Amino acid sequence: MTETLSLQQLNELDEAGFIAALDGIFEHAPWVAAGAYARRPFATVTALHGGLMQAVMERPEEERVAFVAAHPDLAGKAARAGAIAPASVSEQAGLGLDRLSDTEYERFERLNAAYRARFGFPFVICVRRQTRDAILDAFEARLAHERAQELATALDEIGHITRLRLVERVTGAGLPKTTGRLSTHVLDTHKGAPAQGVKVELFEVGASGRALLAQAVTNADGRTAAPLIGDVPLRIGTYEIVFAIGAYFAARGLDLPEKPFLGEVPIRFSISEPEGHYHVPLVATPWSYSTYRGS
Amino acid sequence: MTETLSLQQLNELDEAGFIAALDGIFEHAPWVAAGAYARRPFATVTALHGGLMQAVMERPEEERVAFVAAHPDLAGKAARAGAIAPASVSEQAGLGLDRLSDTEYERFERLNAAYRARFGFPFVICVRRQTRDAILDAFEARLAHERAQELATALDEIGHITRLRLVERVTGAGLPKTTGRLSTHVLDTHKGAPAQGVKVELFEVGASGRALLAQAVTNADGRTAAPLIGDVPLRIGTYEIVFAIGAYFAARGLDLPEKPFLGEVPIRFSISEPEGHYHVPLVATPWSYSTYRGS
Amino acid sequence: MTETLSLQQLNELDEAGFIAALDGIFEHAPWVAAGAYARRPFATVTALHGGLMQAVMERPEEERVAFVAAHPDLAGKAARAGAIAPASVSEQAGLGLDRLSDTEYERFERLNAAYRARFGFPFVICVRRQTRDAILDAFEARLAHERAQELATALDEIGHITRLRLVERVTGAGLPKTTGRLSTHVLDTHKGAPAQGVKVELFEVGASGRALLAQAVTNADGRTAAPLIGDVPLRIGTYEIVFAIGAYFAARGLDLPEKPFLGEVPIRFSISEPEGHYHVPLVATPWSYSTYRGS
Amino acid sequence: MTETLSLQQLNELDEAGFIAALDGIFEHAPWVAAGAYARRPFATVTALHGGLMQAVMERPEEERVAFVAAHPDLAGKAARAGAIAPASVSEQAGLGLDRLSDTEYERFERLNAAYRARFGFPFVICVRRQTRDAILDAFEARLAHERAQELATALDEIGHITRLRLVERVTGAGLPKTTGRLSTHVLDTHKGAPAQGVKVELFEVGASGRALLAQAVTNADGRTAAPLIGDVPLRIGTYEIVFAIGAYFAARGLDLPEKPFLGEVPIRFSISEPEGHYHVPLVATPWSYSTYRGS
Repeated sequence: MTETLSLQQLNELDEAGFIAALDGIFEHAPWVAAGAYARRPFATVTALHGGLMQAVMERPEEERVAFVAAHPDLAGKAARAGAIAPASVSEQAGLGLDRLSDTEYERFERLNAAYRARFGFPFVICVRRQTRDAILDAFEARLAHERAQELATALDEIGHITRLRLVERVTGAGLPKTTGRLSTHVLDTHKGAPAQGVKVELFEVGASGRALLAQAVTNADGRTAAPLIGDVPLRIGTYEIVFAIGAYFAARGLDLPEKPFLGEVPIRFSISEPEGHYHVPLVATPWSYSTYRGS
Repeated sequence: MTETLSLQQLNELDEAGFIAALDGIFEHAPWVAAGAYARRPFATVTALHGGLMQAVMERPEEERVAFVAAHPDLAGKAARAGAIAPASVSEQAGLGLDRLSDTEYERFERLNAAYRARFGFPFVICVRRQTRDAILDAFEARLAHERAQELATALDEIGHITRLRLVERVTGAGLPKTTGRLSTHVLDTHKGAPAQGVKVELFEVGASGRALLAQAVTNADGRTAAPLIGDVPLRIGTYEIVFAIGAYFAARGLDLPEKPFLGEVPIRFSISEPEGHYHVPLVATPWSYSTYRGS
Repeated sequence: MTETLSLQQLNELDEAGFIAALDGIFEHAPWVAAGAYARRPFATVTALHGGLMQAVMERPEEERVAFVAAHPDLAGKAARAGAIAPASVSEQAGLGLDRLSDTEYERFERLNAAYRARFGFPFVICVRRQTRDAILDAFEARLAHERAQELATALDEIGHITRLRLVERVTGAGLPKTTGRLSTHVLDTHKGAPAQGVKVELFEVGASGRALLAQAVTNADGRTAAPLIGDVPLRIGTYEIVFAIGAYFAARGLDLPEKPFLGEVPIRFSISEPEGHYHVPLVATPWSYSTYRGS
Repeated sequence: MTETLSLQQLNELDEAGFIAALDGIFEHAPWVAAGAYARRPFATVTALHGGLMQAVMERPEEERVAFVAAHPDLAGKAARAGAIAPASVSEQAGLGLDRLSDTEYERFERLNAAYRARFGFPFVICVRRQTRDAILDAFEARLAHERAQELATALDEIGHITRLRLVERVTGAGLPKTTGRLSTHVLDTHKGAPAQGVKVELFEVGASGRALLAQAVTNADGRTAAPLIGDVPLRIGTYEIVFAIGAYFAARGLDLPEKPFLGEVPIRFSISEPEGHYHVPLVATPWSYSTYRGS
């Protein structure tokens, strides 16, 4: 693993040093860094990433295809066998793609084979921006695309993958936006004040079940101390925030039915912008609530 | 099974006929009808029920206790063995209390035994006004009560049970309110009109899972052709209406993310008034919604 | 004034009787009824109106222009002098156009003159579907139109005028929709029930001030006994419903600031569909409210 | 006018210096500072103010009454004649109480006379925390009080008056909260994003009319660059924020009626906590909106 270095340091390296410093950002493709070398100095990390992608995009189509084709299958044999780039290993592991059941593994194998048969290159997706369900949805949707569209999509995804890798390698001004934020807020319009002490749980809602991602309790301002998700890309997928609003109103001592109208309020929504800010508030009384994508 | 008759016919019967006509309304207790006979004529069915209950309430406490004690255990041996009043059989069957697994049966047996040991009479509840989960919650809550409070509660529940039986036996003016209604309405505030064609599903949400109770699609007025539940008591319990609002907005052809912010919107709420009207609307855009207990 | 008659009676009249029966519906143009006569019998009043309009539309352009040109100026000398059709007199009087101040009269005269100079026919509008402000807005907007567009608009307006006159003359099946409805509803989501006893006032909001149109108090269902406006066309224009929600919550005895956050809540909105249903509810707590065009 | 000094400087002054430094904070009452002198050093400005008030409260009732009685009439002859403390002059002038019409002046004179006749001391209120209407409302409400309650209220008001004066004289840690904030936010739930470019106007709504207090346009986050009111006490009173939401949606190019349902949306509300934060957002589509006291 190459160490972190500053943009200024990178700008001052000779070509061999420059290529070595960026080793592993673009999978098995030192020529990308070589192609961008002449464009130094880069004023921002965003410009650096742009220069690297441009070095890819200016190659003829067959080279771009070969470049994409050098990427490993998702959840494939190479991942199981350890024959992929170290960054790919940890990215795929983050989503548990290295720990699939045999049934799941076979589903991925079938999709991988069908995709490769249709397009001549593997299915590439930036797994750090996706839930597992979103990957499977994307896999099936993309199998229906035209080849030119898929090549463009694969390169876009490589853009996302390498941008995330780059900001972990190079520090400096002008970092590209690679993280999103999911926050909430609970307002009690029965008393006209923030709702303090509401238990909030965030779930990922997948085809095969639910996974608890975060738990928090609202503070005096009706917010959670930290965003429910922050400082990482938001994974494209479906989520549910469950607010224990019934327990909150019961604790206020209101005169409500023994089994109150609202107990646990689920707000289910999907995220489609991994680098976006999703603010999902709950404005509630014991008898009503509203929510919206706020800011 | 005695047949249906009109309040006027009932008012004109002699004492033996009156008692026979009301046979089975009050479990194994023809003396209730006998006690109410002198109060004829009854102007309304509500007044008739009131007269019958008064015949119970004016008896000394030991007789009221004996009256309650003559009721069968809930989901008990008598129900399994067929030794309870025919109305009780069908009421308990309606909630599946005659088809419990051995584990569930044992849980009811334990609760029945504990309740009977504590109070000297069986646990009585009007099952037609309850979900199975609500019965178990009530069972545990009522085990902690004082005996006088429980005797009053048991008689209240017998009031509910017999009121429901009575309106199926006697027709006429002044029927007591024994049914509730659950309705919904979907309004699209993105276009300022009712949302037509929204798929709506109603679930009972229990401790052990969910059961689909009703499905409907909204009409041009944003309503369902019939109430989600109507013409029966609403069972005390927790429910979820799931609105397929994402598919609705997609069908409108709006420019939304591939995975829209809102897909299936669940509204979870509890019912505590079996004879009430619960109107639970959804007022939605692709990015927001609100709900409330309406009218 | 010809009397009311049924569609069946009308269908059975001879030509002279038919023309006489419809006298005054189309201003100074008995040839319209004559042209529609051959199309009898009409199955519905809507079809009758369609037949009459068709008799206009099938005439060559110069005759349609002459037909429009035979209409009186709005708020003009003819109206002051009594030289217009009796129906026109009462329609213009309904909006006070016969009682203009000299300044207002001069403004209308200037607009009438400009319009007539530009298009060669007078400005025609169905005053029963407009507030006075809406007429002035329409006047100015229409002065900028092309002549062909204005001729079509004038004939549309004559369609509205004559439809309203026709449903007052001819009874029978298939009446065209000529009336709208404005209704409201107040829901108290602090207690989860309709808000009873809320004073509601409806104002027309004009450039030169406000006029109180209706007052009501909500009933046990949170509604007003009658629609705020009903059984007439809704006048295109701007309105305000003011809800005395502060007094309502104070009467409930809630613990609120001496000067509560919400006192009189104004909801200002415009009506653009005179034959539409505008349902404008208020869903409120002492600290929040929402409204929408409902159904 | 004494200059600003730090709490530390004040703590280190000798008694004469201490009294001089606080001259004018408590109207014509140097004994208040003298009484608090022994309690030095004060850790915070809040504690300093508490010490000064305590020096008042520990005096016998007749002295407290005499102290209140030394305050000038509101909008009275002394104010007109310039015979009141300089701070009082500018405070009363801030609300235009030195520029009353003769009718208004007479109304204040009558109220002042009635109040003084009933209680034996003048009506004292912290004018910087009030609109003119709120003062008149308070005047009439307080005339109905008991004397003991009024004496307590007058001393509370003197607490507010002197707290505001003190934070302008003494700097340092632990300043008491003397300012409030009124902010807004416009969210467009038709497109699921903040509404940028909405014209917002704030009015004070008084018995005799409306006064424009602030104008702003929302930024990319749907907020105004500065709070609508900030860094001063919010005056108790009634306000209206008018949002030009119709123009905003028209500028988005949506397909809406020529006269859209929502044009200028007024939100009318009252402020009762001058040191509070009032966040009054608008969550809107072209066909609906909601607001609430947020945070």
